Amino acid sequence: MGFLFRSLRDKRSVGGVMMIEKGLESIAGGVTAARGFRASGVECGVKKRGGLDLALVFSDHPADAAGVFTTNRVVAAPVTLSRQHLSDGKARAVILNSGNANTCLGEEGMAAALKMAEVTASALSLSAKDILVASTGVIGAAFPIDKVVTGIPSLVDQLTPMGGGLAARAIMTTDTVSKEVAVAFMINDVLVRVGGMAKGSGMIQPNMATMLSVVTTDLGMPVELLKRALKTATRASFNRITIDGDTSTNDSLFLLANGASGARIEQVDERYESFVQALTYVCTELAKMCVRDGEGATKLVSIHLKNAGSEENAAIAARSVGNSSLVKTAFFGEDANWGRIICAVGYSGIDFDPDKTRIFLGDLPVYMDGTGLPFDEERAKSILSQREFEVTVDLGGDPGEATVWTCDFSYDYVKINGSYRS
Amino acid sequence: MGFLFRSLRDKRSVGGVMMIEKGLESIAGGVTAARGFRASGVECGVKKRGGLDLALVFSDHPADAAGVFTTNRVVAAPVTLSRQHLSDGKARAVILNSGNANTCLGEEGMAAALKMAEVTASALSLSAKDILVASTGVIGAAFPIDKVVTGIPSLVDQLTPMGGGLAARAIMTTDTVSKEVAVAFMINDVLVRVGGMAKGSGMIQPNMATMLSVVTTDLGMPVELLKRALKTATRASFNRITIDGDTSTNDSLFLLANGASGARIEQVDERYESFVQALTYVCTELAKMCVRDGEGATKLVSIHLKNAGSEENAAIAARSVGNSSLVKTAFFGEDANWGRIICAVGYSGIDFDPDKTRIFLGDLPVYMDGTGLPFDEERAKSILSQREFEVTVDLGGDPGEATVWTCDFSYDYVKINGSYRS
Repeated sequence: MGFLFRSLRDKRSVGGVMMIEKGLESIAGGVTAARGFRASGVECGVKKRGGLDLALVFSDHPADAAGVFTTNRVVAAPVTLSRQHLSDGKARAVILNSGNANTCLGEEGMAAALKMAEVTASALSLSAKDILVASTGVIGAAFPIDKVVTGIPSLVDQLTPMGGGLAARAIMTTDTVSKEVAVAFMINDVLVRVGGMAKGSGMIQPNMATMLSVVTTDLGMPVELLKRALKTATRASFNRITIDGDTSTNDSLFLLANGASGARIEQVDERYESFVQALTYVCTELAKMCVRDGEGATKLVSIHLKNAGSEENAAIAARSVGNSSLVKTAFFGEDANWGRIICAVGYSGIDFDPDKTRIFLGDLPVYMDGTGLPFDEERAKSILSQREFEVTVDLGGDPGEATVWTCDFSYDYVKINGSYRS
Repeated sequence: MGFLFRSLRDKRSVGGVMMIEKGLESIAGGVTAARGFRASGVECGVKKRGGLDLALVFSDHPADAAGVFTTNRVVAAPVTLSRQHLSDGKARAVILNSGNANTCLGEEGMAAALKMAEVTASALSLSAKDILVASTGVIGAAFPIDKVVTGIPSLVDQLTPMGGGLAARAIMTTDTVSKEVAVAFMINDVLVRVGGMAKGSGMIQPNMATMLSVVTTDLGMPVELLKRALKTATRASFNRITIDGDTSTNDSLFLLANGASGARIEQVDERYESFVQALTYVCTELAKMCVRDGEGATKLVSIHLKNAGSEENAAIAARSVGNSSLVKTAFFGEDANWGRIICAVGYSGIDFDPDKTRIFLGDLPVYMDGTGLPFDEERAKSILSQREFEVTVDLGGDPGEATVWTCDFSYDYVKINGSYRS
């Protein structure tokens, strides 16, 4: 996996920046790409098999903060705590651990999450309320709070503007690569940056962040704009990916804006839209990285639904296709089984006319007028054998489109998840 | 698979019957166990790899008939045709083929389904309207109607009261065993029978028949009672199983009642309830056989939800658990990962209190008061290593329960579905 990194690197001039879209440039780094943010990652012993498992993201300045969380009724203790700590719209730091989800541990779990915030706050001379907490890993296993507490001093000591990469590695569970994206753009002749990190892998499904992610920016803005932008970006990115249809108990996405660039926006205008564009790009790339690195995934498939009557209908149908185990195993087998695709649209619950529907694998039309088209099996196979390809389903109705990113379903998904706790 | 057969055979006295529930006895056979029904199965060449692929079920007498079909918006041509042919509440025969689903073939598909009915009707000296049609197999591949037509004469010639077994084999696709169940019970001192066959394997998910199944009885009754009984039985059986969450385009369940036993019921009374009990038993056993024989399945798991406020809530939560790829891979790995179970209840969308919820693997309590309980891992492993076990989730609310049957998710599911068309 991680070939987006490679492709970015290939296109980027050495040490420089790469134009992505109008006014938006890809830059190196992740959660510390924006000015005034530092991060670190250490090994404190939560992960049974060893490795970095504790991460900290810190803003040198007071920052406005927003978050989106899992829609699951069962939520991890850190989700409950972070929701409380975000109620004032402010945060200075996010502490995250991998290896244990701190979920379903009752009062002990809440006490542990609070302790993480308190010890971190104390080491940074802040109030616990300024600290956001996130955990990922096994559900229900006793949380080793002592190990985490022991790790915090060195975590704080090692905070550095170059620390984004270590932090990104420290939140990995079954992820095979760390995930970072950053972009830069101009606001009133001032260069501002948005960057972030994520961990994903399993339990990735639409309807919320479905992963841990921290995104930072050195643009300043009122917290209401920050919340609005995060909601817009999430809807088009993290809420449009699916790996296995499960929505975790821990999904958290945090966005911190510290204004360290000196640029500030105050209202919904062109400059706000530039920020939303940048934030959406960062979130979408992080989300796609999570799908590419889905448990056992070998392919990233874009399911593009068109003319579905509304964006909502398009997203529902695209998710139905992207979630189908039968579709996903056919992708794995590189089998041009369009019947499973039209079938998954059929049971999605939306209203549409199968006879007006057209399906394309890449640019190869395979279904039209209610029936399959003769097509070159070799060409279909060569499209499906790519590591990334697009499936387009045009429902032939009123406008309304959406893209959902999914992966294939392989032997390795079963292998990884058959013995996760062990 | 197929160990239900063995267990029935073990308990049954040689050539005799076995008491199942009060007044209900298991008997040999399937779709021809009831009097006045004959069946046959032949090889006509639809299946690329050979084997029986064409089945016929025939009633010697006029029969009342009812059906339930897939809820998918995309339906196979035979589903459309059979719905039309059932509009008068009468049918004399059902012709079924495996190897090709006759779906997404436009007018050609409808013509082929009609031709199957017409040629069968002609050979039986009936009207095409008396014939129901069902197909299962690959979606979108050209339907070899000539092969089917060529097979119909011998199919009709070979109709016999002992033919249920051959018919059950002829509708198999990736099924590894044929599926038949029959029971007998008394109505006013007359012995009546209900028996059926089914094919399942992939694309098995709640919210409709989700397979092909034909059930027959020699009890007579008004067609309105027949429809009502079928609806009740389906809700508690075929609509409560899940293999991979996909709802096929072809799912059809037919029920024929020919009155050949001489017994007849006229209204909703105790005798009607006896019939519903028998029909539900037959449908439930057929449904469970389909899950046991799910693609790649090695285990049958009953997900029992209790105190969920309503039967509907219980069924929603049980399906969410039964459909979770993460839960199902953990079953495959015999990993007591109750966190994934509470998580799947959490995202099911129903309202419940995680702190009042209790989870049991078999009779072993593993979760209570919002947290995991210490439990003997060896004992949990020994429960999960059984080929059949129950998971109970007690939500601690108002009464309301439901059971959903699911299977585990294994390497073989991926293998079977990665190259189904090839």
